[in-house]
Amino acid sequence: MAAKGNFFSVEECLEKYIPPEELGEVKRILYGREKDKIIELSAETLKIASENDFEVKGYRFEAEREDTRPSRIVRVGAVQNSIVAKTTEPVDVQRNAIFQKIEKIIKAAASSGVNVLCLQEAWTMPFAFCTREKTPWCEFAESAEDGCSTKFLKNLARQHNMVIISPILERDEDHGDILWNTAVVISNSGQVMGKHRKNHIPRVGDFNESTYYMEGNTGHPVFETTFGRIAINICYGRHHPQNWMMFGVNGAEIVFNPSATVGGLSEPLWAIEARNAAIANSYFTVAINRVGTEEFPNAFSSGDKKPPHKDFGPFYGSSYVTAPDGARTPGLSRSRDGLLITEMDLNLCRQVKDWWGFRLTQRLPLYAESFAEASKLDFKPQIVKE
Amino acid sequence: MAAKGNFFSVEECLEKYIPPEELGEVKRILYGREKDKIIELSAETLKIASENDFEVKGYRFEAEREDTRPSRIVRVGAVQNSIVAKTTEPVDVQRNAIFQKIEKIIKAAASSGVNVLCLQEAWTMPFAFCTREKTPWCEFAESAEDGCSTKFLKNLARQHNMVIISPILERDEDHGDILWNTAVVISNSGQVMGKHRKNHIPRVGDFNESTYYMEGNTGHPVFETTFGRIAINICYGRHHPQNWMMFGVNGAEIVFNPSATVGGLSEPLWAIEARNAAIANSYFTVAINRVGTEEFPNAFSSGDKKPPHKDFGPFYGSSYVTAPDGARTPGLSRSRDGLLITEMDLNLCRQVKDWWGFRLTQRLPLYAESFAEASKLDFKPQIVKE
Repeated sequence: MAAKGNFFSVEECLEKYIPPEELGEVKRILYGREKDKIIELSAETLKIASENDFEVKGYRFEAEREDTRPSRIVRVGAVQNSIVAKTTEPVDVQRNAIFQKIEKIIKAAASSGVNVLCLQEAWTMPFAFCTREKTPWCEFAESAEDGCSTKFLKNLARQHNMVIISPILERDEDHGDILWNTAVVISNSGQVMGKHRKNHIPRVGDFNESTYYMEGNTGHPVFETTFGRIAINICYGRHHPQNWMMFGVNGAEIVFNPSATVGGLSEPLWAIEARNAAIANSYFTVAINRVGTEEFPNAFSSGDKKPPHKDFGPFYGSSYVTAPDGARTPGLSRSRDGLLITEMDLNLCRQVKDWWGFRLTQRLPLYAESFAEASKLDFKPQIVKE
Repeated sequence: MAAKGNFFSVEECLEKYIPPEELGEVKRILYGREKDKIIELSAETLKIASENDFEVKGYRFEAEREDTRPSRIVRVGAVQNSIVAKTTEPVDVQRNAIFQKIEKIIKAAASSGVNVLCLQEAWTMPFAFCTREKTPWCEFAESAEDGCSTKFLKNLARQHNMVIISPILERDEDHGDILWNTAVVISNSGQVMGKHRKNHIPRVGDFNESTYYMEGNTGHPVFETTFGRIAINICYGRHHPQNWMMFGVNGAEIVFNPSATVGGLSEPLWAIEARNAAIANSYFTVAINRVGTEEFPNAFSSGDKKPPHKDFGPFYGSSYVTAPDGARTPGLSRSRDGLLITEMDLNLCRQVKDWWGFRLTQRLPLYAESFAEASKLDFKPQIVKE
C-alpha cells in the first residue's frame, strides 16, 4: 500500500499506523461497537479464493438472546468483481467469461454456508451506459424470468440451497421490448420469487442510464425467503432516503444495494448512505460496488468539458455491511475481486426497533400529507419572512 | 491525548499518526474533497477564546463562480458548551451563569464576522429530562417570544448584526401552559422571526423527553433571513430522514441540528446522520452537541437494569459542518467548549442540485401515496412469498 492509485482501503491504513490504545477509540467512533468479530471460513472457501485471486472476509453481528424467539442466524454473501473479457469481444464471450468467474465465487460462498448472496448491479455486463451507444450493449438485456443468467443462477441456487439476488439489464418482452434495471430474486429452491426494478435513475456524470430505461414500476417489494425478509435498493436509489424507508415500512430485515460507482463521483458518500439507511430503518444493509476499469471501443465524452476518453476511471469496490445499530464491517478492498461473508442474527432488527423506536416516532401520516402537498403544482413552500 | 476517557477527536489522531502520502487518501475518503480550508480568525476572537478557555476553529467551503448570480458568502457559527453552575443552584443562578459564558462566545463569533449562529439544544439549562422530575426543571421553560433568553439574545443579535438560533424549553402560555422543545429564530435586526418545535421526540435511554413535551406542531418552516434560507432539525429529528427532507423541499440552504447526546447511545451514528442529510438534500448541515457531564441532585435509573446514578455520562461534543456535496469539516473536540466558524458559499446548494439531481429524481408523488397507504390501519406491506 502506498501512493494514490494504489490505496487499498482506509481500514488497512488505520490498523497499520494507529497505536492499539487509540485504535480502539478510533474504530468505535468510526465503525461502531466491536461487532466485527471475524468468523472462520472453510478451508475450501480459502482455497477457491486463493486459486482464483479474490479477497474473502468474514464477520459476525450478534444479537441478544430472547426468551420467546430463537436466534435467526443467516450468512449473507456480497460479491464485487471486475469484468473478464474485453468489451470488444462478442456479447456471449463477455457474458460467459463473467459467468465462469461468478460460479467460482458462489462455490466459495457455499463452502462457508452462505444462505443469501447478492451480485453487483448489472453483473452480466460492462457498465456501458457511459457510451450512450445502444449496440451491442442492449443485447446484454434478457428476460428476468428465463434469461440466460437466471437459468444459470437457478441451478446454482438449487444446488447450494442459496437465495441469489441477480441484478441484470432486463428486457421486458411483454411490454414493447423495453429495458429495465432489475434485480431478480431466485429462491433457494431455484425458483424466481420475483423481481424489483430500480426506482431512481441517475442523470449524472457518466451514468447516462436514463438513456436506456425509466424509473421502476415495481414499488418496494420485500421477499420473504427461507432465510429472512430481504429487499433490493439498486444503486442510485441509495441517495434517496425515502426509497430506503419504504423497504423498511414493508418489513425488510436486510436491504441489498448492488451498485456501480466511481471514485471521483461518490467515494466520500459511499460509507455514509447505506450506513445511514441501516440506522434510520433498523435493518441490515449490504452495499456492493464493482471493481476495475472498463475500457470501451469508442471514445465518449463525460459532460465535464474534458476530452473524450475510453474509460471513466476505476470502480472502487469497498463493499461493506452495516447492522441496524449502525455498526459496520470493514470494507472489501478498493481494487480486488472479493467476497464478503457476514453472519447476522436477524433478531437484532426488532431489538433495535424496540430500543431506538424510529418506526414508532416516524409520523408517517404527517409526511404522507406533506409530500402530497409538495407534489401539487401550486405548492407554496413553508417560508417565514421577517 | 491518550487513554479512552481522554480521547480528544478522531481527526487529531489521524493527523498525528498517518503519514502524509496516505493521510491525503484517508481524509478524502472519510471526509470528502479538500474543502476544509482553514480560515483566519481575528485576533480578538482568538483572544476571547484563549481567555475563556474554549476551542475555536474556522473552515471554508467554496463554490464555483456563476455568470448570473454573485457568490453568497455567509459565516456560520456553531456553539458547543458545558453548563456552568451546579444543578443544585437556583434556576436563575444556573441560567445567568450560562448566559455569561454564551455572551463571550457570541462576541468571539461576531469578531470574526459570523452572520448566523446556532446554540445547542436547550442551551439555557442542564439536560435534566433524564430525571423525570418536574421541578425545578420546568421552571427553565419560557415564552419563545419574550422569555428572558429571547430578550438576552435579541440585544446581542441587533448589536452584532447576527441571526441567532436559540433552542430552548418553551412554555406555551396561550395553550394551557404546556411545554415544547423549541428553536427560536432571532433575526439580525433583533426581532423574533418565528419558531420551530421539535418534530420527533425520543423514548430511548435517559432521553425521557416525552414525559415533558409532545411532537411539534409547526411543520417544517424555512426562515428566509438576510443571510440565507435556514431551518432547524432539533436533536432526535436527525434520525428521521423524512424530517430532513421536508426542510429541503421547503427550500432550506442550511439546516442546523442542535442536539444533546451521549457516547454510549449515539457516538458512532453522529458523523453519519447529519452528513447523510446534507448529501440527500443538497444543503449544508450544522450538527451541534453539548459537552461535559451534568450531575443531578437525586439518583435516577436509566432503564438499563444498572443501579441508579446521578449522571448519564459525558456529552461528546464533536460538532461539525457538512457541505451539500458531502465534504465535511473536522469536528470540534469531544470535551471542550467550542466555537466552529464555517464560511460557506450558498450557491453551492443549487450547483450540487444541478449536478446530482436528487430533487429532480425524488418521485415525491410516489412516496406521498406509499406513506398514505402505509398509514392506513388495514395496510398490508408489499411482501412477496414463494
